[in-house]
Amino acid sequence: MVKVLGVGYGVVGKRVADAVALQDDMEVCGVVDVAPTSLVAVANERKFPLYGTSPEAIAQMRKNGLKVEGTFSDILKDADIVVDTAPTGVTAKNVLLYEEARKPFIINGGEKHETTGFSFSSLANYREAVGIKKTRIVSCNTTAICRVLVALKSAGVMDDVYVNIVRRGADPVKTSSGPINAIIPVLGGFSHHAPDVKTVMPDIRISSAAVKVSSTLSHIHILKVTYKSPINKTALVEAFEKTPRIILVSGEKGITSNAHVLELFRDKLRPRNDMWEVAIWEDSISVEENTAVLIYCVHMEAIAVPENVDAIRAMLGIEKNPAIAISKTDKAMGLYQENANYDKL
Amino acid sequence: MVKVLGVGYGVVGKRVADAVALQDDMEVCGVVDVAPTSLVAVANERKFPLYGTSPEAIAQMRKNGLKVEGTFSDILKDADIVVDTAPTGVTAKNVLLYEEARKPFIINGGEKHETTGFSFSSLANYREAVGIKKTRIVSCNTTAICRVLVALKSAGVMDDVYVNIVRRGADPVKTSSGPINAIIPVLGGFSHHAPDVKTVMPDIRISSAAVKVSSTLSHIHILKVTYKSPINKTALVEAFEKTPRIILVSGEKGITSNAHVLELFRDKLRPRNDMWEVAIWEDSISVEENTAVLIYCVHMEAIAVPENVDAIRAMLGIEKNPAIAISKTDKAMGLYQENANYDKL
Repeated sequence: MVKVLGVGYGVVGKRVADAVALQDDMEVCGVVDVAPTSLVAVANERKFPLYGTSPEAIAQMRKNGLKVEGTFSDILKDADIVVDTAPTGVTAKNVLLYEEARKPFIINGGEKHETTGFSFSSLANYREAVGIKKTRIVSCNTTAICRVLVALKSAGVMDDVYVNIVRRGADPVKTSSGPINAIIPVLGGFSHHAPDVKTVMPDIRISSAAVKVSSTLSHIHILKVTYKSPINKTALVEAFEKTPRIILVSGEKGITSNAHVLELFRDKLRPRNDMWEVAIWEDSISVEENTAVLIYCVHMEAIAVPENVDAIRAMLGIEKNPAIAISKTDKAMGLYQENANYDKL
Repeated sequence: MVKVLGVGYGVVGKRVADAVALQDDMEVCGVVDVAPTSLVAVANERKFPLYGTSPEAIAQMRKNGLKVEGTFSDILKDADIVVDTAPTGVTAKNVLLYEEARKPFIINGGEKHETTGFSFSSLANYREAVGIKKTRIVSCNTTAICRVLVALKSAGVMDDVYVNIVRRGADPVKTSSGPINAIIPVLGGFSHHAPDVKTVMPDIRISSAAVKVSSTLSHIHILKVTYKSPINKTALVEAFEKTPRIILVSGEKGITSNAHVLELFRDKLRPRNDMWEVAIWEDSISVEENTAVLIYCVHMEAIAVPENVDAIRAMLGIEKNPAIAISKTDKAMGLYQENANYDKL
């Protein structure tokens, strides 16, 4: 059993811990946080050994009733690999500790590609990650775009991709953030998403732009793809059906907003109503000659969680074959798709 | 096994069906709906036999891939009791069918007290519901107020209660409803909540007012109670701790908004992140002489679900003792509180 240490028990960290705990070849040896909150106390309910970042943090956590085993440095030496989901800045300092302790580590979305020199997205570049010592899981938005591009690539030879990202204002509990009632354009050139995709899929011609809106539920992407020859909707729908971690929803069947998408995953009793898949509206797919446009929903809190699990297996060389690794993760977490072509990855 | 028919598979209906399915003395013999949507299709995933309201509805549901067993009238005759959560207006017509078929039935919040002549809230009046043929489960807001009043009553002799209700704008998927960015006062006299409480607890002196805001997460109540003699905070905290279906949360422990309350219940892996309890902010409780003020969070989608299960047991005479019935429901659903005084109900 590989011992995974989770550093950060926030939006992504708590989800990765749960996902790791579901696998039969790895376990959570500890989670590290600093906040003496009822949300971090959930780690105790899950029986994850909880560690504090400093004696002061631990004292405050214990004062608020949290059970804390010790400090970050106590547990780091026991870990086989670290998944860091701490805030940027904190992660930058943590990385030095992991390097010093010679521990393989994973950092997440908000961090820079240069920090690890490798950016990971399972469907696109699992094989390249086998045996590496450090990686960055790309952000929720980039993870979604990479998955969609893998599907789009399987349907024909792409010429150009352009994606508009309508970002949620903040995660649900980030109540100090706005906007309450405004649309905020991302200014100063193209948005960072297209260059971020290129850290994973360097050969794609892609550009992007983004706005931030008053929703805490999910991002929405509006993507335009141009192929080198005419394409048809059936081919695209089939490509999406055959690609793991992508699902189709439809307005005709009552899924008319991101609220409805998330409600569907509440009803499916997903933990925390998490949607790990990209949900593409089948009736948003419009095609004319070489060009297609589509709209999809990205659950920012959850989408990159399976990729964290895959990265652990790749980096430690537990499984070199992406089809086996990815389907194993999906089966353990409950998002395996019978009709998807895992073998083509 | 008592056969429960759910009429309406929307916000409340789907939750009641899940709650009934968890009990060892009742089962879901069917759920009835009209919508050919992916959300209603979840009834198929749950293996609840699904029925349509008309041949036309059934045809459309089947066209969209839903498995439908037959019509409402087919299954009504097999049911021992009906829980109706259909929209007001539809329920009014349905009630005539239940009366004609001589089936005991439960209607929910939005309906009028006069339709059944009895309004039910478990902690307050379970005993009176034993053996009755029809009842109304009071609304989410009234359910919350009744529970809080039961606790407040146990701490001293109340003189007067006043509650401000800050209502969520709409349930998450009701995307046609506002407000997006306004606060809407309820006009034309006191709000209906206080009179509604009196249908359950006629002896309480209570008044209420309400505003509607731009949130889809929960209601928030701000309640002021005056006792006939001085009260202290410790007595109130203890009363809340000892009352089933009430929990305490705290801003000091990081639960600083309704978003944080709901996040806690996502992290606890409650189905659909449902909070069946009333969550009172311990650090909102302010006391001066005879008067106390407190703030609490009401998850409108979920709070009255346990009451529906209790009502089935009361009406059919399965269990006459509220302590046994209510703790049985709570154990089966997973909200049983070890430290609460079920025996005092």
